[in-house]
Amino acid sequence: MKPSGEDEAAPAGGPWEECFEAAVQLALRAGQIIRKALSEEKRVSTKTSAADLVTETDHLVEGLIISELQKRFPSHRFIAEESAAAGAKCVLTPSPTWIVDPIDGTCNFVHRFPTVAVSIGFAVDQELEFGVIYHCTEERLYTGRRGRGAFCNGQRLRVSGETDISKALVLTEIGPKRDPATLKLFLSNMERLLHAKAHGVRVIGSSTLALCHLASGAADAYYQFGLHCWDLAAATVIIREAGGIVMDTSEWLLRAPEKWRRS
Amino acid sequence: MKPSGEDEAAPAGGPWEECFEAAVQLALRAGQIIRKALSEEKRVSTKTSAADLVTETDHLVEGLIISELQKRFPSHRFIAEESAAAGAKCVLTPSPTWIVDPIDGTCNFVHRFPTVAVSIGFAVDQELEFGVIYHCTEERLYTGRRGRGAFCNGQRLRVSGETDISKALVLTEIGPKRDPATLKLFLSNMERLLHAKAHGVRVIGSSTLALCHLASGAADAYYQFGLHCWDLAAATVIIREAGGIVMDTSEWLLRAPEKWRRS
Repeated sequence: MKPSGEDEAAPAGGPWEECFEAAVQLALRAGQIIRKALSEEKRVSTKTSAADLVTETDHLVEGLIISELQKRFPSHRFIAEESAAAGAKCVLTPSPTWIVDPIDGTCNFVHRFPTVAVSIGFAVDQELEFGVIYHCTEERLYTGRRGRGAFCNGQRLRVSGETDISKALVLTEIGPKRDPATLKLFLSNMERLLHAKAHGVRVIGSSTLALCHLASGAADAYYQFGLHCWDLAAATVIIREAGGIVMDTSEWLLRAPEKWRRS
Repeated sequence: MKPSGEDEAAPAGGPWEECFEAAVQLALRAGQIIRKALSEEKRVSTKTSAADLVTETDHLVEGLIISELQKRFPSHRFIAEESAAAGAKCVLTPSPTWIVDPIDGTCNFVHRFPTVAVSIGFAVDQELEFGVIYHCTEERLYTGRRGRGAFCNGQRLRVSGETDISKALVLTEIGPKRDPATLKLFLSNMERLLHAKAHGVRVIGSSTLALCHLASGAADAYYQFGLHCWDLAAATVIIREAGGIVMDTSEWLLRAPEKWRRS
């Protein structure tokens, strides 16, 4: 189905084709706005900490994406970063739900460090149906649809399959928090990873794009604590469809045999 | 002067214009080879450690750059990463000297992590005259010429001027070494940086491109221990011409007042 919606009665590409096409078009439009903003002056206001910034563009892009989707799909629900920061509840019901991060890599955006993405995920019956991620400055469009593969600019994505840490490029993020407990956790994980002789460790400032690198096989693993659902929703479909696994290690540990758990 | 050299008698753009143009053309040609290799199979052989890989493309690109430059400028000298690894001496004499890193970000290259650059610096009388760095996958050409500014794809570069660490995006690299002393130094520096509440820290796997981000104002500082001259030569001209400073902190400390030195 075309994004103009001329064939609404019988979508050729599955029940959520129109939604998917809308997500692609909006991600590209949002990317244009972000690229333009990156070439203009920076004006920022602080959020929860000095290291967590929110910008006018963040609000503008989220407003655009949600208002356009609401017009086309009035019964759908939304979970989005800026709305959540403003107090909106994050509830995933069985209704079709859009999970939106208007600018993933806000700190990068503020510095004009060219690693910034729009992330749009879509879930129905509490199951992720598709994800669309647009790397704004490099103009790379990552998409994944449940059961239909993951792609970057039309090219099929596959995870590397590497399981030997000494041959692995591992991605992580520091995040905006600078309290002693967060830093201790970050540093001790980094220490363990390096002592395990990880081939390389990268920190690029966008969890969404880090996960896209994973899906493309350019990196082998990613770990992070404190991610929100909008950081993960779209990327989760893309990684799964590229043959990878997304998991919550704390949940996994609860189900793991006693001997695997650390005291 | 054109790279074809039809006006060798009176270079319009300064005494090293022909050399500069040759560097630009070779960086672009090398970039094409690297992009092509990134789309093919990986074949690697280990160098000094499991985390330090050298590839066929590294040798191929260095061979191309040096042989072409030797043909055009037979009296010039060379310092280059792969030749040095093979035992060639790194001596900077007053003669015109090319300082070449054929693939900066070798570990990224091996993983096809798209942050890989060609770096060509040029020094005369032991002073850097120009630097050319080509970000192969994003097709960004960074250039700097002494006294004539720094540019990326024709756009003038300026460093950010930020001096407050809590507002700074800081870049660093882990490098390939995994011995306890190297890891301890890396982790203790990272810890101090985060406790000083650096706004963000990024690790992208290419010192050359990290320095280009600095020149463009997308990042505010970069530190690293154990860099080689080919990691720095081209980038140093670009950073200086963008208004930034490159310094060896150990040398600086020797000249610093006693009270600034750490025991």
